[in-house]
Amino acid sequence: MKQKRIALFGSTGSIGTQALDVIAANRDLFSAEILTAQTNDTLLIKQALEFAPNMVVIGDEKKYTVVKEALAGTDTKVFAGEKALEEVAALDCYDMMLAGIVGYAGLRPTLQAVNLGKAVALANKETLVVAGDIVMKRALEKGAAVIPVDSEHSAIFQCLVGENNNRISKIVLTASGGPFLGKKPNFLVNVKRDHALQHPNWTMGAKITIDSATLMNKGLEMIEAKWLFNLTPEQIQVVIHPQSIIHSMVQFEDGSLKAQMGLPDMKLPIQYAMAFPQRIPNDFPRYDFKKPQTLSFEEPDIKTFRNLGLAIEALKKAGNMPCILNAANEIAVYAFLKNRIGFLDMTEVVEQTMAKISFIENPTLEEYFETDGEARNFAASLIHM
Amino acid sequence: MKQKRIALFGSTGSIGTQALDVIAANRDLFSAEILTAQTNDTLLIKQALEFAPNMVVIGDEKKYTVVKEALAGTDTKVFAGEKALEEVAALDCYDMMLAGIVGYAGLRPTLQAVNLGKAVALANKETLVVAGDIVMKRALEKGAAVIPVDSEHSAIFQCLVGENNNRISKIVLTASGGPFLGKKPNFLVNVKRDHALQHPNWTMGAKITIDSATLMNKGLEMIEAKWLFNLTPEQIQVVIHPQSIIHSMVQFEDGSLKAQMGLPDMKLPIQYAMAFPQRIPNDFPRYDFKKPQTLSFEEPDIKTFRNLGLAIEALKKAGNMPCILNAANEIAVYAFLKNRIGFLDMTEVVEQTMAKISFIENPTLEEYFETDGEARNFAASLIHM
Repeated sequence: MKQKRIALFGSTGSIGTQALDVIAANRDLFSAEILTAQTNDTLLIKQALEFAPNMVVIGDEKKYTVVKEALAGTDTKVFAGEKALEEVAALDCYDMMLAGIVGYAGLRPTLQAVNLGKAVALANKETLVVAGDIVMKRALEKGAAVIPVDSEHSAIFQCLVGENNNRISKIVLTASGGPFLGKKPNFLVNVKRDHALQHPNWTMGAKITIDSATLMNKGLEMIEAKWLFNLTPEQIQVVIHPQSIIHSMVQFEDGSLKAQMGLPDMKLPIQYAMAFPQRIPNDFPRYDFKKPQTLSFEEPDIKTFRNLGLAIEALKKAGNMPCILNAANEIAVYAFLKNRIGFLDMTEVVEQTMAKISFIENPTLEEYFETDGEARNFAASLIHM
Repeated sequence: MKQKRIALFGSTGSIGTQALDVIAANRDLFSAEILTAQTNDTLLIKQALEFAPNMVVIGDEKKYTVVKEALAGTDTKVFAGEKALEEVAALDCYDMMLAGIVGYAGLRPTLQAVNLGKAVALANKETLVVAGDIVMKRALEKGAAVIPVDSEHSAIFQCLVGENNNRISKIVLTASGGPFLGKKPNFLVNVKRDHALQHPNWTMGAKITIDSATLMNKGLEMIEAKWLFNLTPEQIQVVIHPQSIIHSMVQFEDGSLKAQMGLPDMKLPIQYAMAFPQRIPNDFPRYDFKKPQTLSFEEPDIKTFRNLGLAIEALKKAGNMPCILNAANEIAVYAFLKNRIGFLDMTEVVEQTMAKISFIENPTLEEYFETDGEARNFAASLIHM
């Protein structure tokens, strides 16, 4: 494999730092061409000094000078601001984008990579949740491979290699159930930020950890899966699997199920997406069948975890509804993380925003951007009341 | 897919009758070109009248006249005897052999198919256990695809499609543990034929059902896997999985595990091998994640189920040792089925035969045949004492 030049968007986040670990362990296979961060200038500088990228972008323009001065003696070019993120993504100087930016902010740079026909290792599920139809259509036109990094979608992707024209009967997305599995609304109403941030199996960023606790994450993954694998809502099943060992499954038309399994460790799907179709030997911990093990499965409790039901509703409604869902959810989660609203209030914000914002059946990209803005404003107004 | 002409060796057995169900349900994809049976003339005649094969072979020459007369008004040619099985297999009139003959008797016809460069759907594990080196080497030379039908090996084969040059770290063969899982020698010593024939999950022929009860079947599968997938003994792990839902797993060099799953139903791997690389829609029952489910895993008890330990010893020793193991085991199992020896005696027969017969490190095919004969004679002499 020739060395892949990686444009690492969101290099200081949970996905980004682990991707750099993969690069550090496989310098012959990968180089860091671009690193970007939103606000964490200190870590971005440290990473730039270690990986000597061609360019870095700091989203927060106020931090431009600090980064610029710190990298003054190096060959690394420094840019700042939201617009620079898009512009740098549009430069034909890398082989693969690792889209690790959290939330809606990841959409525009990812679209630029797709426009260039670049391979995208997609950790930013919101890109597909918000505008999956446009992104996947464009990827097909431009020949851009979209390789998922989410452990569930990576599992499905791995199960599909070599199956060529064999049709999918359904996919089964596994969900740990999060820290509040089995709890009821009378418990959830009092849940606080710090408790919700304690995921039983996975170490992830704050936004996705809260989404896991509410099961919204699984709903977003259903929408992401629809676009990645060209599925109908009826072909996507969610199953609670508290041990997080089976990362997801595919059932084919002949009834055969294929599953991808392992310890819950994001490094594996990150590395897989970066190196695909090659698998790289590593020393990540292995799941061990020498100890007695039990894997269990049950249906999700959609009556209690209403976010999942709302996401399924948006999935089925389609159009700009998933965009509305996602925008409202982002506002709600950040408000919860700031202790401004309660755990169950997040669902209220999403539900009311979905009821309020105008539905568009076949939105243009511009209409997705407008929908996102409107939904955020309305969701924020609910919180400020 | 153009219609595949199937040479169905062992058409009246458990695998054969299910393969004919697959053909009956997919007449556009498959035709039965050759049907063979050892002794069951009644069923062979019935099958020939239904599927109108080009040829049938009845192994038992005494039954030739009955079959010949019953098919007198048809276009089906009738042959009889062991030699005819080989001769018919050597005719270039079919596209795929389904090798469903039980035991060592399946080796010679299968070798003929491989010599012709025909695809072989291999349900006869003894072919590889006895002479895997020769069979697989010849298959490679002749371009004959060997597609496993055993559910475990089919699972591994399905997990490997599309992985191309990605190296296997290990495979994990799952074993139900059979009807006597958790039992100790003081229980096993009194086990009778009818009890051992009651497998908790799988409906199979008598020989393999007894082998499942003693765990010899899993040992034979380890040896089969070695040849099919070009593995070292250290790369082959056996795990007890009483629910028989995960049919086996592959772990790659990056630590990722892939599994193939489903209800225990031989029709699926039979159909998969026949139609590969295509998957055919069907109405076989599906595993259902809507009910709460538990899958468990534990290490096999090799101290109690000593046959598995003997098979691992033969696997490691290689040469003609697996051939000796298999021959002795066939004699022992049929003696047990005739209530001539006890459950634990089967292990004694195998162990003593392995100790007695001369070891050959790199046997010729002829030496395998000789080894088989010697081992059978010695094993039989132990039983007749």
